[in-house]
Amino acid sequence: MAPTKAPDSSRRSDRSRRAIHDAALALVTEVGYRRTTIEGIAARAGVGKQTIYRWWPSKAAVLMDAFLDLAGRAAEDAGAGSGSGDTGESAPGIPDTGDLAADLKLVLRATVDELNDPALEAPTRALTAEGIVDAKLGAEFVHKLLDPQLALYVTRLRAAQEAGDVRADIDPRIALELLIGPLMHRWLLRTLPLTHAYADEIVDYAVGGLAPRA
Amino acid sequence: MAPTKAPDSSRRSDRSRRAIHDAALALVTEVGYRRTTIEGIAARAGVGKQTIYRWWPSKAAVLMDAFLDLAGRAAEDAGAGSGSGDTGESAPGIPDTGDLAADLKLVLRATVDELNDPALEAPTRALTAEGIVDAKLGAEFVHKLLDPQLALYVTRLRAAQEAGDVRADIDPRIALELLIGPLMHRWLLRTLPLTHAYADEIVDYAVGGLAPRA
Repeated sequence: MAPTKAPDSSRRSDRSRRAIHDAALALVTEVGYRRTTIEGIAARAGVGKQTIYRWWPSKAAVLMDAFLDLAGRAAEDAGAGSGSGDTGESAPGIPDTGDLAADLKLVLRATVDELNDPALEAPTRALTAEGIVDAKLGAEFVHKLLDPQLALYVTRLRAAQEAGDVRADIDPRIALELLIGPLMHRWLLRTLPLTHAYADEIVDYAVGGLAPRA
Repeated sequence: MAPTKAPDSSRRSDRSRRAIHDAALALVTEVGYRRTTIEGIAARAGVGKQTIYRWWPSKAAVLMDAFLDLAGRAAEDAGAGSGSGDTGESAPGIPDTGDLAADLKLVLRATVDELNDPALEAPTRALTAEGIVDAKLGAEFVHKLLDPQLALYVTRLRAAQEAGDVRADIDPRIALELLIGPLMHRWLLRTLPLTHAYADEIVDYAVGGLAPRA
């Protein structure tokens, strides 16, 4: 993904992009999505607005890339934690300790924390809401941001099937929605508080099933 | 809820309200939520805009009442089907045939059909998206439109607990989110097609559980 330019120019360009991403996230938090403008993002990032127009077609595109950048940074942090840190090769999957429920709780609790992060709540809501009414933007959101995360659940659930912890006739791509769907529904519609305890119960219900054991 | 006025005046007023509701739903479908105005709704409904301002503080409020009206009409139809039809007393709950999975599939398939109804898709998405970014509107949406529906699931799941089909330690208010959450998530984010087959699998997974039976 990194441009093959001279190192200095490339580094300067990366710094500008990141400043623009951070400015977009902060502005949406402060004034809301609708009142966020390319001009406002440029002023806050300390770049000319032509710089933004050269790289992105719209403020939605800036915001989308800001989230991709955040996801990349999180992956880098996770990679650094596991010892490497200089490559994107070791994508941070869902851990496999052999205890499916425990592994899923770890990941869903982290998702709860991310969703409840006040620095990201407004831009995440804004981008999601725009995608709900704008099918093209929504498809991009799913393709770039959501699907790569969902793929991690498919991988973990397949491993659980191989380990005999999940029935062989279960479709992992559908099963993961029993985990993600309730969390996102509760967060998006704010029906009730989104807590670690809730994440744990969703995992227990989904993994263990509702029906009494025979 | 019906005003205690002279019958004629009350009937005329009901007709106006319904015309305004229908105009709001149709306009949002045609031009989108943002370009829908009180003036536009008034013109389409054949009423003065002061009539609308007298009854509703905003276009979001009109849309919310339009959905409440639709829910009321659906309840009336369901009541008529079961023999009465002139009262709102027999609220249409989730059927209890003794087969929990079959009863839930029936209701979730109907929800799939409603969500896929092209006449309601745009206004439903618009109101949901507005509620996602506007906490006050979102709370009203949940309180007036969503919670009464969720209560029906709680009732049915409690009956299932009494019948021994659901473990006694399950919280029905959380369990219902395993059913509703995946459907709404898939519909809102358009990750994959929302079909009857999907509704059936969600019910089977949620009710039967993912783990192999001992």
